[in-house]
Amino acid sequence: MSLPLSSSLSLYLVMDIASYGERTALQIARAALDGGVTMLQLREKKAPLREVLETGRAIREACREKGVPFIVNDRVDLAILLEADGVHVGQDDLPALDVRKLLGPDAIIGVSAGNMEEAEWAVSQQPDYLGIGPVYSTLTKGDAGAPIGTALISELKASWPQLPLVGIGGIQPSNAAAIIQAGADGIAVVSAITRQPDPESASRLLADTVRLSRKV
Amino acid sequence: MSLPLSSSLSLYLVMDIASYGERTALQIARAALDGGVTMLQLREKKAPLREVLETGRAIREACREKGVPFIVNDRVDLAILLEADGVHVGQDDLPALDVRKLLGPDAIIGVSAGNMEEAEWAVSQQPDYLGIGPVYSTLTKGDAGAPIGTALISELKASWPQLPLVGIGGIQPSNAAAIIQAGADGIAVVSAITRQPDPESASRLLADTVRLSRKV
Repeated sequence: MSLPLSSSLSLYLVMDIASYGERTALQIARAALDGGVTMLQLREKKAPLREVLETGRAIREACREKGVPFIVNDRVDLAILLEADGVHVGQDDLPALDVRKLLGPDAIIGVSAGNMEEAEWAVSQQPDYLGIGPVYSTLTKGDAGAPIGTALISELKASWPQLPLVGIGGIQPSNAAAIIQAGADGIAVVSAITRQPDPESASRLLADTVRLSRKV
Repeated sequence: MSLPLSSSLSLYLVMDIASYGERTALQIARAALDGGVTMLQLREKKAPLREVLETGRAIREACREKGVPFIVNDRVDLAILLEADGVHVGQDDLPALDVRKLLGPDAIIGVSAGNMEEAEWAVSQQPDYLGIGPVYSTLTKGDAGAPIGTALISELKASWPQLPLVGIGGIQPSNAAAIIQAGADGIAVVSAITRQPDPESASRLLADTVRLSRKV
C-alpha cells in the first residue's frame, strides 16, 4: 500500500500542535488528510514535549489510518517515541547519516537546503529527499531567510535526477505549479493548509494543482 | 570503579561547547576533571548539532578516561550518539519515563524542579536524581526564574530521603556549603568553573568545599 517516496511528497503538510480558529491541531490534520495530503511532518519548536507527545500520537495515528507517512522535524528521540516513519532535519540539526544510525535503513530522512552548497552537503549525507526553500516569501518560519525562487530546484534536478525534491516556503495554489514544473516532486506547505478556514478544501485544491501541473 | 550516584553528584559541571578566554570547551572540561569534577553535563541549546557532536565526543572521551559520568541535557538522540551515561531533562523536555524507554534501565536520568509541584511530578517519573534550583540568583540561564533558596532541598530530603539531590543556580565557593547542609548530595555549577581564569583550581576549591560541608 505504500507509495514511492516521490508520490508521497506530492502534498506535504508541515504543522505544529497549535489550534487555529475552532480547530485543534488533530482536527486540522484530519481535515488535511481527508483533502489529500500525502505526507505529514510535525514541526514543533516551542511547546512542552509532554504536549507534543500527546498531540503527536493522535496525529500519528490519523496518518497511519490513511497510510500517509508521518515525519518528525529535527528530533530523533521524539520520532522514535511517536513511531514516526522518518525525520526531517535542517542544516543545523543532526546530520542525516547520524539520524540513519539511530533509525535504520527503512526510515524516511529528509534534509533542508537553501543553496547549492547546502544541497551538496545534504546529498553527501544520503538523504531520501531534499526540502528546497524558501521558494517564496514566508512569514511562517521566522528564520527562513530570503526567498530563492525555483532555480535551485531545476539545478538539483539536472544534477541528481533520481533524488526526490520538495519545494517549501510561501507556496499557495497560485504559485505551486511553477515548483512542479521546475522539477520538484511535490510541495510542502504550512499556512496554506493550517491557517485556512477550510483545511480540507484547501488541501484538495493544492493536491489538484500539483496533479495538473505534472501534465502540462 | 563506578561510584554510587550520590557521590557522583558531589561536583556536577554543566557546560556548553563555547570557548572561554584562551581555553576551548574541551580544555575547560579537562581542567575541571583534573580539579575534581565528579559528573559532567553537556547543555548546549544554540550551536549547530554537527559541532555539538564533534566537541561532545571529545568531552565524552575525557570523562570516560576519568571514570566520570557524562550526561546530555534534553536530547536523547544526541545522548545515544555520544554514548552518554544519561540524560538530564527539564519540566518541558521529554518526560523521564519516556527517556527511560529510549535509554534503558542503566541510564542515569535526572529531572529539574523549582518547586514542590514540579518535584512531585518529577518523582512520579522515577528519576535517578533531581536538580533543584535556581537556589541562588544566576545570569547563566536566562529562563531560570527567581532564586528559591535552600528550603525546597530540605523539604525534599525529608519527603524522599533516598532520592539523590543536587542544587543548581548561582553557586559559588562562598554559598555552596548551605546547599550541602540543607541535604543536597552535591552542587551543579556552570560559570563558577567554566568562566574562571583557572577552572582546575576553581573545581578543586568547590570540591573541597562540598567535602568539608558534609563533615560539619
